[in-house]
Amino acid sequence: MRKKDLSPEEKFGATLKAIRLSKGLSQEELAFSANLHRTYVGSVERGERNVSIRNIFVLCEALDIKPSDFFREIEKIKGSK
Amino acid sequence: MRKKDLSPEEKFGATLKAIRLSKGLSQEELAFSANLHRTYVGSVERGERNVSIRNIFVLCEALDIKPSDFFREIEKIKGSK
Repeated sequence: MRKKDLSPEEKFGATLKAIRLSKGLSQEELAFSANLHRTYVGSVERGERNVSIRNIFVLCEALDIKPSDFFREIEKIKGSK
Repeated sequence: MRKKDLSPEEKFGATLKAIRLSKGLSQEELAFSANLHRTYVGSVERGERNVSIRNIFVLCEALDIKPSDFFREIEKIKGSK
């Protein structure tokens, strides 16, 4: 039985955290460069936010990653179609 | 002077429409298979919706396209970073 499939929000959050850490950024630094609140970034990473397309672009730009590459990382998560 | 850069919502909507048409689907058919309302799909295509990650996954699944491929199409739009 596969671990409960992660929700889209949880997959997005886990990927955001992994890429942020791979770039050596803290939540504060990512939030600052994305012009978002740190607590918002934390809640996104915990999978608590149904993130919008606008913030997806803002977060990807702050991480200096193309959204298509970001979603390719999401798709590597087990249980992703 | 470049045409006003499209907003994320407008880029998403234009891409959704292009891919839907390339698959020979009407808005009704896409909305039905995505379990969304037809008027919602129309408003997304017009760039009026700040679409959420959950609906991005739902729409991509209904179009049988990976989100990463969908965003690669968005990135082909002039003025996209």
